[in-house]
Amino acid sequence: MSKNFELPPSLSINGNEKIAKDILSRIWGKQGMFTCTVANTLTSTIPGLSDAGDTPELTMFTPAADAELLVLGKTVCMKGIPINPGGIPTPATLTQAALELSKIPYLIVNGGCKVIPNIPCIEVGGEYGEKVTTGHAVKHVKEVFEKGKIFGELLAKSYDFIVISESCAGGTTTALAVLMAMGVVKENLVSSSSPNNPKELKTNTVLEGLKAAGINIGDLKDDPLKAIECVGDPMIPVNAGILIGAAKHIPVIVGGGTQMAAVIAAAVILDPSVIGNIFQGTTRWLLNDPNSNMIKIMDSISPDIPIINVNMDYSSSPYEGLQAYEWGYIKEGVGCGGASVAAIIESEGKITCDDLLERVHKIYKNIMNFD
Amino acid sequence: MSKNFELPPSLSINGNEKIAKDILSRIWGKQGMFTCTVANTLTSTIPGLSDAGDTPELTMFTPAADAELLVLGKTVCMKGIPINPGGIPTPATLTQAALELSKIPYLIVNGGCKVIPNIPCIEVGGEYGEKVTTGHAVKHVKEVFEKGKIFGELLAKSYDFIVISESCAGGTTTALAVLMAMGVVKENLVSSSSPNNPKELKTNTVLEGLKAAGINIGDLKDDPLKAIECVGDPMIPVNAGILIGAAKHIPVIVGGGTQMAAVIAAAVILDPSVIGNIFQGTTRWLLNDPNSNMIKIMDSISPDIPIINVNMDYSSSPYEGLQAYEWGYIKEGVGCGGASVAAIIESEGKITCDDLLERVHKIYKNIMNFD
Repeated sequence: MSKNFELPPSLSINGNEKIAKDILSRIWGKQGMFTCTVANTLTSTIPGLSDAGDTPELTMFTPAADAELLVLGKTVCMKGIPINPGGIPTPATLTQAALELSKIPYLIVNGGCKVIPNIPCIEVGGEYGEKVTTGHAVKHVKEVFEKGKIFGELLAKSYDFIVISESCAGGTTTALAVLMAMGVVKENLVSSSSPNNPKELKTNTVLEGLKAAGINIGDLKDDPLKAIECVGDPMIPVNAGILIGAAKHIPVIVGGGTQMAAVIAAAVILDPSVIGNIFQGTTRWLLNDPNSNMIKIMDSISPDIPIINVNMDYSSSPYEGLQAYEWGYIKEGVGCGGASVAAIIESEGKITCDDLLERVHKIYKNIMNFD
Repeated sequence: MSKNFELPPSLSINGNEKIAKDILSRIWGKQGMFTCTVANTLTSTIPGLSDAGDTPELTMFTPAADAELLVLGKTVCMKGIPINPGGIPTPATLTQAALELSKIPYLIVNGGCKVIPNIPCIEVGGEYGEKVTTGHAVKHVKEVFEKGKIFGELLAKSYDFIVISESCAGGTTTALAVLMAMGVVKENLVSSSSPNNPKELKTNTVLEGLKAAGINIGDLKDDPLKAIECVGDPMIPVNAGILIGAAKHIPVIVGGGTQMAAVIAAAVILDPSVIGNIFQGTTRWLLNDPNSNMIKIMDSISPDIPIINVNMDYSSSPYEGLQAYEWGYIKEGVGCGGASVAAIIESEGKITCDDLLERVHKIYKNIMNFD
C-alpha cells in the first residue's frame, strides 16, 4: 500500500482527502475490531422526538434489541426486531451483514441501559440517562469516560484499527444539546431516523435542557464532560473514552451519523492529538440527507477529520422496508456505515456493496420469515 | 502444517498425543483470543485454606488485582501486586509476558467479584460466591453458564482458537468439591499455590460443604450445574459456558491447573462433543507437583483431553520471588500456562521460553521497582 492508493467504487471520501488516504493506506487489509456502545436516554420517550422504535415506549428497547440481533442473530428482550413506524428495519441488518462477511471480531459495550441486552457486554459502570430537559442527564461521566479510555488502550494493543459506534434512541437530540453547549453548532444540523425530522421539537427540547442546566450556547466549549453530564446521553462519554484511548496508538473509525459528531467534538477538545488518526465512517444516505448537515458539523469541529462513506444503495431492493432507506428513513445507526467501511478495508476492497446488499437481503428475509 | 508436526522444545505433550497434535496442527500460526475469568468465593477467607494472597482477607483482592495488572500494568484495587505469603509474585507476571510478546487480544470476564476490578470487563450477570461449607455456594449458575456460551459462540465467529482461564482464590477447594460431587475424584488430588498443600483442611471443608448440600460423592454425576450451585465457585459456570460455546466451532485451550479440571469435567458432561477440540494448557510446575495429580484427574474425566505444558524454568532467575516457583510455590493461575502455550502456537514457535523469561524479568523488575 502506498501513495498510489486507489479507492474502490464502494467508498467515497468527503473532506480532507490527504488524511483520509493516509489513514486508509495504513489500515488497508489490516485487522480491525468493531464495537457498538448501547445506551438508553429517557429523552427518547418524549413523544414525537425519536422514531427509533415503533412507539415512544419501544424506543427504550431498541438499543438492547440491536445488540441482541448482532450477537444472537435474533432478539430476546422484545418480540420482532427494532423497526421505525411503518415497519422499516433497524440498520443493524447492514451491520450484521458487514460483520458476517468480514469476520471482524466485535463486542457490545453497555454504556448505560435501562433495558439490558441478554448477552455478555463490556461493562463500564454506566447508568441510563435522564431526559435532556432535566439539565442533569448523565451520571458517572468521568468514571465511564476513564473506563472507555482503558478499553480503547486495551484494544489498541492487539488490533490495527477499531470502529466505534452506537445504538441509543433519542441520541440525535442529546448530541445536538452537547454540540450546542460546546458551541460547535448554533443551529439544529442533526439528523433523524425519520424523513420528517422534528427539528423544531428537538431544538426546543435542547433549549429547555440548556436552560435547566443554567448554561448558554457555547458556555461549555472547553468542558465537554460537563456538557455531557448536563445534556448528553450515556453513550457519548464511553465512546469519547474509547476513541481517545485507542487513537493515540491506532486509527479509529467513528461509525455513525450526527450522534457520533458529539463524540468526536468532545474527544478532540479532551485530546486534540487524535486528529490525523480518526475519520468518520458512514453511509451515503446520511450525507445525502437534506434535513441535516454532517459535513458542516464536522467542518466546525475540525477540517482535518475526513468522512468516508459506503455507497450502499437500496433502490433496487425487492423489499419496501429496505427501499425506504432511499426515501430518507433510518440513514444510519448501529455502526452500519462504519462496519461496512471496515469490512471493505479489511478485505482490501474485495467485499463490495453488492456483496453487502446480497447478505442484507439474506438476513432481512430470515428475520422477517419471508420465503 | 501437516502430520509431520514438530513440537518445539518449549512445549511438551502429556496424554493423548494424537489429539494434541491434531489440534496443534489446526491452530499453529493462527489467531487466538485470551480470556481470563475473575471471581470471588468467600471460601478463600477460611483461614489456612488459600495462599493466593498475603492474608485470608487479601485473597479477596487477588482476582481483581490480577485483572488490573493484565489490563493496566498496575493494580488499583490494592497496593502492590498479589503475592503469596513470603512475597512470591502472582503468575499474572508470566501471563502478561506472553500476551505482550504475542500481541494476542485479551479480555477479562467478571465471573462474579466482591472486589470488582477497575477496568472494563465482560459482564455475565454473576455474583461472588458463598463459602463452599454453606452447600449453596453459587447463584445464577444457569444464567451465567448461558451467557458464557453466547460469549464463546461470539468469539468463535472471529478467532481461530481461544484460551479460557481463571483467577479465583480458594478455587482449588471449590474445584475439588465439584469434582467430588460429580464423582470424578474420590480423593483430594487438587493443587495449591503453596508447597504445603493443606490437603486435610481442604478435604474436610469440601466434605462439610457436600454434607450441607445433602449430597454424597458422585451424586451429581450427571448434573454439573447443580454441583456448581451447591459447592462450586462463580468462575466455573462462566468458563464451562465459554468452553462449550466456542469448542463447537474452534479449538479451546483450557489454561490452568486443577481448578480448570472442574470446568472441563462440567463441560464434557453438558456437551461431550467438545472432546477432540480442547486441550489443557498449563505449566511444567503444575505437572511436577508431588502434592496434586492433574494427569490422574484428567484421566478420570476423559482419556481424550491432552495436556500441553510450557517448559518454563525459573531456576536460573536472579530473583528469589521467581525461583520460588521451582520450590513448589504458585505453579499456575491467571492462565499463565495457557497464555504461554498460545503465544508459542500463534508465533509458530518463534516465541520461546527464553523470550518469555526475559519478558517476565522485565515486568517483575518494573513492578517491584528494582533497578
